Amino acid sequence: MSKKSFPLSLEQLREAAARFPTPFHLYDEAAIRANARRMRAAFAAAGVPGYREFFAVKALPNPFILKILAEEGFGADCSSLAELRLCQAAGISGDRVMMTSNETPDGEFREARRMGAILNLDDITHIDAVVAATGSLPETICFRYNPGPLKGGNAIIGKPEEAKYGLTRDQLFEAYARARELGVRRFGLHTMVASNELDVQYHIDTARLVFALGAEIKARLGIELAFFNGGGGVGIPYRPDQAPLDYAALAAGVARAREEILVPAGLGGAAWYTEWGRCVTGPYGWLVARAIRRKETYRSYVGLDACMANLMRPGMYGAYHHVTVPGKEDAPADRVYDVVGSLCENNDKFAVQRALPEIAEGDFVVIHDTGAHGHAMGFNYNGKLRSAEILLRPDGTLLPIRRAETLDDLFATLDFRALADFA
Amino acid sequence: MSKKSFPLSLEQLREAAARFPTPFHLYDEAAIRANARRMRAAFAAAGVPGYREFFAVKALPNPFILKILAEEGFGADCSSLAELRLCQAAGISGDRVMMTSNETPDGEFREARRMGAILNLDDITHIDAVVAATGSLPETICFRYNPGPLKGGNAIIGKPEEAKYGLTRDQLFEAYARARELGVRRFGLHTMVASNELDVQYHIDTARLVFALGAEIKARLGIELAFFNGGGGVGIPYRPDQAPLDYAALAAGVARAREEILVPAGLGGAAWYTEWGRCVTGPYGWLVARAIRRKETYRSYVGLDACMANLMRPGMYGAYHHVTVPGKEDAPADRVYDVVGSLCENNDKFAVQRALPEIAEGDFVVIHDTGAHGHAMGFNYNGKLRSAEILLRPDGTLLPIRRAETLDDLFATLDFRALADFA
Repeated sequence: MSKKSFPLSLEQLREAAARFPTPFHLYDEAAIRANARRMRAAFAAAGVPGYREFFAVKALPNPFILKILAEEGFGADCSSLAELRLCQAAGISGDRVMMTSNETPDGEFREARRMGAILNLDDITHIDAVVAATGSLPETICFRYNPGPLKGGNAIIGKPEEAKYGLTRDQLFEAYARARELGVRRFGLHTMVASNELDVQYHIDTARLVFALGAEIKARLGIELAFFNGGGGVGIPYRPDQAPLDYAALAAGVARAREEILVPAGLGGAAWYTEWGRCVTGPYGWLVARAIRRKETYRSYVGLDACMANLMRPGMYGAYHHVTVPGKEDAPADRVYDVVGSLCENNDKFAVQRALPEIAEGDFVVIHDTGAHGHAMGFNYNGKLRSAEILLRPDGTLLPIRRAETLDDLFATLDFRALADFA
Repeated sequence: MSKKSFPLSLEQLREAAARFPTPFHLYDEAAIRANARRMRAAFAAAGVPGYREFFAVKALPNPFILKILAEEGFGADCSSLAELRLCQAAGISGDRVMMTSNETPDGEFREARRMGAILNLDDITHIDAVVAATGSLPETICFRYNPGPLKGGNAIIGKPEEAKYGLTRDQLFEAYARARELGVRRFGLHTMVASNELDVQYHIDTARLVFALGAEIKARLGIELAFFNGGGGVGIPYRPDQAPLDYAALAAGVARAREEILVPAGLGGAAWYTEWGRCVTGPYGWLVARAIRRKETYRSYVGLDACMANLMRPGMYGAYHHVTVPGKEDAPADRVYDVVGSLCENNDKFAVQRALPEIAEGDFVVIHDTGAHGHAMGFNYNGKLRSAEILLRPDGTLLPIRRAETLDDLFATLDFRALADFA
């Protein structure tokens, strides 16, 4: 069971909404820091050496959040030029940045090398692509492994052999050998075969898979991997009847796998990295909206001032996000509503046929677990604007860490003077 | 069968790409105008009085396109403040604008009235909402009808009784009577029960449904509707083996329905409106990209410099978009590729297991039918930027009608000075 709490009282929320018009995303800095410390403590307690989390920037690409996580000892995992730039702005040094991209343009390889980020190559052809783009290979290279049918996928990511990412097993051996020939001296191995997976054993099995492969790489090539990156994909309990993943159990499983596989292979010094995103910030963000319309037709509807532009997951994936009504936590959930946004798109629904307390126009409505893949996935369809992001600081103050979009932002790429002359 | 053509020769495309870096959306003005004329001619030839198309702005919210369509006699259908503003910028007068919104904020009702747009109300409670927001009701009001189980939905839009839109049958009678009491003098009836539907009879049946309801409204309330709006939802042949919808057959069916239902009811003077989007511009737009990476793992991959940020439909809906390789139109389609974008999102695939000619790095790759719900649905996930929109003018020249986003645009809502002070 996960408790679906919200960090502001109704009175505090009213004050917040007077300063920052709804909708907005609210993030809880203290909770993010506490969670980051729990993650590190779990791996430290289990005795996993050189543990480092490279936060998946795509989950919450806000440089204030990156700065907080960097203070907690995290690095960052980037997939694009924009994300590299956000890390630079947040003061994260290149050695703490992993560049895990695919279909990577030459310019992004160049920028990643310029800042000294670790290249995590998606394909064997990228060895030559990096040389062509940057003139050489860096001292450190990581390769992304796609185990294909050797590892069953999970429900969201699908079958690894149908995924576009990574090198096959045979390609990996060839790639390490070739990279060594070209001067690479330090190597990592990465895989990512899950998305939003709460099963601890699934993640431990992934660690065992890459550890065993690392042992085989040493045996066949004499290359001792410096680090293993288990990727992301750790889920969060979107539904209140789900339990969060037990970090301690996961860390213990990784530590055991290390003892059983890496240490006997003489790879006990290899570091363990993760690139978690969702579980780092997801539960500590909320989309705060207001009910602006009520409607009774074939169903009962609550219309919000937020829409898919602010949170795509329910409309795009049919994903569950918990919904609460501040001030009505103890009221009976004796109504059944579709809680909807204003897009002319019938899947713009935050909740479908959800049992909730009676909601009146003007009530606050809070959508939970929007701290990852929330604001980040927003679009401007139907001319809708993306919201502000507000940080709840540990001292209880509120800091806007992204302002809301305006119509001027939306129209910034249009030339209205040229339009006036156009016919 | 629909011919999947592209309006530029390979030589012209090379010149275009030298001016406008790929990826970009290309729109064919002459083809859009010719299609608009075919639409109007079909309804004129069938003798449907007062036909007007209100282009669904959300499909291609570019004011240059709106200006072209206005020149062809089209109005515009808006769902938001931003879309109203685009119509104003394009010089479209309020009487040619239909405001078909839902969960509408007060401010958007005010702006719609200020410019004299026709309000197409989504709910019976919106009568009072408009009075509360604007002090009165306008002279003309339209109501959106949701027939619920009285009309089977189509595959994409789902069952009408599960859709958030519109008033029930019983509510409609109440709404018209009440609006008349409050001073409204001119009435319309709207419904929209399809999305991307190519079956002519489905659309004719929708016209018959609203015509019969209009006759009943007259019989029961004595209100003679001034216009009927059949909504949008006309599909396009995304697949080459599909045929476009026959405008003449649709217009003839609407004309017959009018003769059989409206004329005997004394409603022969009522106008017929549509709010088509997809079929107006969809087939006349292309996303032009380049293959930048080739990859052989468990499948053969072609990686483009475009991604879901430029076109969401394949990733979001699994939608088919035709793919061609300029200069290789006559080459045998003897390869099978997944054509993918660069997002760290495994559904970022423009085509899955598609038979295509051999594609080399550097080849242009054209994604067809992106003239509607293409650029409009783009997002910035993974820090990706939305592309430029280029208009191919009837004289063969190219006019940029939206510039590509830059990192400065992407970061416009961030305060980097505050970030520097943040700790």
